[in-house]
Amino acid sequence: MKPPFLPVSIVSSGKALPGRKVTSSELDARLSKSPGWVRKRSGIDHRFHANDEHQSAVAAQALNDALARGGIAADSIDLLICASGVQEQQLPSTAALVLDCARLRAGTPGFDVNASCISFPVALHLAASLLNTSAYRRIAIVASDLASRGIDWSNAETSLIFGDGAAAVIVERGDGSTGIEAYRLRTYPEGKAYCEIRAGTSRTPRLGAQPADFLFQMDGKRVFRLASSVMEGLLSELLGEAGLSLGDIDAVVPHQASHLGMRHLAERLRIPASQIVDIYATHGNQVAASIPTALHEAFITGRARRGQRLMLIGTAAGVSVGGMILTV
Amino acid sequence: MKPPFLPVSIVSSGKALPGRKVTSSELDARLSKSPGWVRKRSGIDHRFHANDEHQSAVAAQALNDALARGGIAADSIDLLICASGVQEQQLPSTAALVLDCARLRAGTPGFDVNASCISFPVALHLAASLLNTSAYRRIAIVASDLASRGIDWSNAETSLIFGDGAAAVIVERGDGSTGIEAYRLRTYPEGKAYCEIRAGTSRTPRLGAQPADFLFQMDGKRVFRLASSVMEGLLSELLGEAGLSLGDIDAVVPHQASHLGMRHLAERLRIPASQIVDIYATHGNQVAASIPTALHEAFITGRARRGQRLMLIGTAAGVSVGGMILTV
Repeated sequence: MKPPFLPVSIVSSGKALPGRKVTSSELDARLSKSPGWVRKRSGIDHRFHANDEHQSAVAAQALNDALARGGIAADSIDLLICASGVQEQQLPSTAALVLDCARLRAGTPGFDVNASCISFPVALHLAASLLNTSAYRRIAIVASDLASRGIDWSNAETSLIFGDGAAAVIVERGDGSTGIEAYRLRTYPEGKAYCEIRAGTSRTPRLGAQPADFLFQMDGKRVFRLASSVMEGLLSELLGEAGLSLGDIDAVVPHQASHLGMRHLAERLRIPASQIVDIYATHGNQVAASIPTALHEAFITGRARRGQRLMLIGTAAGVSVGGMILTV
Repeated sequence: MKPPFLPVSIVSSGKALPGRKVTSSELDARLSKSPGWVRKRSGIDHRFHANDEHQSAVAAQALNDALARGGIAADSIDLLICASGVQEQQLPSTAALVLDCARLRAGTPGFDVNASCISFPVALHLAASLLNTSAYRRIAIVASDLASRGIDWSNAETSLIFGDGAAAVIVERGDGSTGIEAYRLRTYPEGKAYCEIRAGTSRTPRLGAQPADFLFQMDGKRVFRLASSVMEGLLSELLGEAGLSLGDIDAVVPHQASHLGMRHLAERLRIPASQIVDIYATHGNQVAASIPTALHEAFITGRARRGQRLMLIGTAAGVSVGGMILTV
């Protein structure tokens, strides 16, 4: 069954980066590599890492940026959805911590949605559903991740690629001329251990958790192989559901997974490089903050404009793949 | 604006308890108290604690119970929402780990929703929204928590009350005769530190996290005071939105927070004890699994029946309060 067009309007967006700009040259020195090694290997010029900032504070900064850019009063937000890949605390939700920093109207409800690196499109789809079925009129979605907290510096593959940051959007139902034309999420749990941070109820200090259990571990080849095998089908389904071809998409906003990952995605899916919003060289992989940060950059640089048709798409730990086609 | 009635039908439910039954007598001995002390103080006869089970395995067991009781094929589930209070791992989502145990159709999508102890009503409201706006026809919601992993045994107040477990429901849109009449979620982040497990990106071993940061900490008096000050308003709003009075509610299914918490809730909100579904003495506080476990018990004992009107209501870390009125 083809689902109906789901009206939603992104009325504003914003982003935030934590304080410390980390250049690839700096990492060359830190990792005892020759000059240019990290830049070449990672495809990144610089990324930002948090000092002692909390994830919720960076999130609130992105949310405030979106409110300010849209001239939107903080007390007009009816709901906050936090769509990060990793939580600031095991309990309570990161949304509660963001609400404490953001100072919205007293009692403003908040909860977290988590689908790792593709939490944002999942949250946007949920927000659109809520705007069409509930009393909520204006919803804020914020994705904030401090991947630097979990970097395993002994692993050259994963230590180079991550950047911290947050991005937010404010959404309303709109007049029905903008919205989601197609949406897909798929999870392939046979890849659950391909990208992980093992600490949690499964591994606590009491259960013998080791320092490595708190660090990000990835089997990049396996993730890539699994994602590659299903991404083409996902793209076909999205386009098929919307009755469109790739040429109808004005810009593709992918998860900024890695330099090579994005290049392979484009080649395999036959998406021209000119169609892809690529902020990787100046942000790195920002986990769940990547897609909304790239979307925000596309808006403020004129790369995406009102009335255009965008595709958000990405792979995530889980392994999940997902995306949507939406007119903005 | 009064939102429209939101159709949803709970077509089946199930639960699971991990292997070890922990009686209050056993805890008397463990905590060097006189016989009967824990029973009297906690109001609990017994609760269940996991041995080495994973949270996702207990979740899958509850999901399989719901599928079996409803005679529902596992491969007919279109989406899994995991609504636990604490994650099995920091990455990926607990939903991905549950999908790996549950063996649904390959590619079945999953994500987590987290509003601490009231994650279940939030997830049920989201599922109802999706069933009315997307291609999903049948959604599984599972809440699974192993609170025993975070018990601070040096704290008499919090070490007595928690039990582990999971519960699941399968929902469809239905024919429109059943659904959500009213729904509210409110978050008061000034209480963010009243109930918490501090570990996360804010406190990692690298940032000097101590063993206590991985344990549940609660300032019970402050939670109670804050929750008490807002619960009466929440109840009025729910009833007002539905155009009902308390007498129209066939059964109230509260979060099983604590013996005294539930009694005070009833007294303050003037809900007769006979109207309240109370499974606390044999389950304890099961975090996010409490509300769906109580709902399931209400169904299988005949305490709640098709066609009746129920109220789910509770308080959560954050501090959040929330609830819904639904006909089932």
